[in-house]
Amino acid sequence: MFLDQIHYPIIQAPMAGGAATPELAAAVCNAGGLGFLAGGYKTAEAMRQEIDNLRTLTQAPFGVNLFVPGREEKKEKEELLRYQQRIAPEARRLGVSLGEPRTDDDDWVNKLNVVLEEKVPVVSFTFGCPSPDLISRLKRAGAEVIVTVTTPQEALEASQAGADALCVQGSEAGGHRASFRNEPREEEEELGLLILLQRIRSAVNLPLIAAGGIMHGRDILAVMAAGARAAQLGTAFLRCPESGAHPLHKAALVDPRFQITAITRAFSGRRARGLANRFLRDYGHEAPAAYPQVHHLTSPLRKAAAKAGDVDCMALWAGQGHAMAQEIPAAELVQQLVEQMKKYAISIRL
Amino acid sequence: MFLDQIHYPIIQAPMAGGAATPELAAAVCNAGGLGFLAGGYKTAEAMRQEIDNLRTLTQAPFGVNLFVPGREEKKEKEELLRYQQRIAPEARRLGVSLGEPRTDDDDWVNKLNVVLEEKVPVVSFTFGCPSPDLISRLKRAGAEVIVTVTTPQEALEASQAGADALCVQGSEAGGHRASFRNEPREEEEELGLLILLQRIRSAVNLPLIAAGGIMHGRDILAVMAAGARAAQLGTAFLRCPESGAHPLHKAALVDPRFQITAITRAFSGRRARGLANRFLRDYGHEAPAAYPQVHHLTSPLRKAAAKAGDVDCMALWAGQGHAMAQEIPAAELVQQLVEQMKKYAISIRL
Repeated sequence: MFLDQIHYPIIQAPMAGGAATPELAAAVCNAGGLGFLAGGYKTAEAMRQEIDNLRTLTQAPFGVNLFVPGREEKKEKEELLRYQQRIAPEARRLGVSLGEPRTDDDDWVNKLNVVLEEKVPVVSFTFGCPSPDLISRLKRAGAEVIVTVTTPQEALEASQAGADALCVQGSEAGGHRASFRNEPREEEEELGLLILLQRIRSAVNLPLIAAGGIMHGRDILAVMAAGARAAQLGTAFLRCPESGAHPLHKAALVDPRFQITAITRAFSGRRARGLANRFLRDYGHEAPAAYPQVHHLTSPLRKAAAKAGDVDCMALWAGQGHAMAQEIPAAELVQQLVEQMKKYAISIRL
Repeated sequence: MFLDQIHYPIIQAPMAGGAATPELAAAVCNAGGLGFLAGGYKTAEAMRQEIDNLRTLTQAPFGVNLFVPGREEKKEKEELLRYQQRIAPEARRLGVSLGEPRTDDDDWVNKLNVVLEEKVPVVSFTFGCPSPDLISRLKRAGAEVIVTVTTPQEALEASQAGADALCVQGSEAGGHRASFRNEPREEEEELGLLILLQRIRSAVNLPLIAAGGIMHGRDILAVMAAGARAAQLGTAFLRCPESGAHPLHKAALVDPRFQITAITRAFSGRRARGLANRFLRDYGHEAPAAYPQVHHLTSPLRKAAAKAGDVDCMALWAGQGHAMAQEIPAAELVQQLVEQMKKYAISIRL
């Protein structure tokens, strides 16, 4: 399987929204890790183009991540309308109109066809568990299937559906929580990576990939001790020159003004961890559990903010280790992580 | 230092409220770990008696934990009164009166004198950082001083005050958050153990003891890889026969009815993690940040609930790994952890 083929147990997270470029994925693949493209938020054809580009840059196996569309839940129209009115002054201030709070399936069927046709070696899923039928189809086409999970229950579900491996996303992780459901539960227990690995390794018998707050080779050793086969890093790669993250986003990660991250629905209607800027603080508690409606609603606002240099109205996704993100080429980061792993592996021998 | 003297990097957490008996501490000490007594919630003389008892049971070094009294903050009387009225029906139902919501310093000065007079080898602190003067005095008396911290900022403060080691408490931990301050901040960022170790190891140069959700030898290896010298386990020891936890509490830890833990001020006025029973769910959001006033207020209610077998009105402190707590003697648990460490140490060699 792919975990046996990569030289180092290092996977670059498929950060949707622009960060995970073919150049970033290729740099990680060529350095001995596993690079990932993000299928989310683009058309199937744009995704195919990125796959083609990546293939011109590396011969190594790589992954593509897809967003699983939510079941059509009837979302409170009123809540959405109220949120729309609440954030309207921010849009006016930035000189744009809010987007239409529509729902969509992120071009799901077409994207599945692309990963099948393109024979993408590793396909990972976020926001849900594909059906056993779909997983079988992907496997028959030669793909290996990773499902991203945030709880032991989701791990069991993905295991029963036939996943080849699980990406275990601890609460430290930046960006969207990969939770299968998007319910406005008050009683959500956020599980940190270590306890989540502990609970999942005793519940399912699948290779685990650990994600959330990993910034250093010692953290990779730690999650491997706790049962992971590899580590998936997102925020650690965000400031690399190959990353397509907005320059203001890159700068904010290490700006001492942003000491705290928080999980919020403010930008997309789904829970995601970002730097606690003004928009997140002011509107985080009021955003409805309506994805992708809130994503589309705030999209013009976020774009205008980026253009205007207004970092307080951008979605600054960041894991809890963001302050350690380095502005170095991705290959150098992989090499650094490997050297740290070698150096500290000794310290935990008994 | 004590970390070099113990055979195994395993510390039994000083669980106040009855669980950390001299028998439990002795069993851990005699098995090669470090046992702890809990100074909190008892008189200085009762604490001295426990130290004497422990010394008849073991020759090994041990620790005593003290609660640092809060600065006298003016707490909203009205908020307390409102909470009192809110939970009064529960007390009536159980046939008791609520306690007086008084403040106290947990017999602080007398307890300090006891640990100095008794030459307690290891003294750890919770809820605050002792002054540099006090830490010097303890060190001159031959004690080694651990300060429990929950953020990188607290770690820096404790390091500057002269602590010998830090107990790094991740958000997974059961019982009270050891935070230095008890402020009703909305913007608290809970840091899981792995990210907290990462951030603290890069901020201070002191031996770190990792606490929070550790239930298995692999978790100990993991925190050591992440920079800890030892692991502190509380919930893992709660169901041991030597633990003084209430039998209903012991049973609840593995009762499938309790799937979720939460952090609440409902029982004590300070944030603490426990099984999400009815009292926690119903009143958690309304409890004021008033410690120890709320502790004294709910004390008769909790005692009556325990007597009546009403597990839904008890404080069922539990870390996020509670379901793995085993009903085995403490020495056997230590041995099991060591064997797991030996078994899995191989898996993380590169």
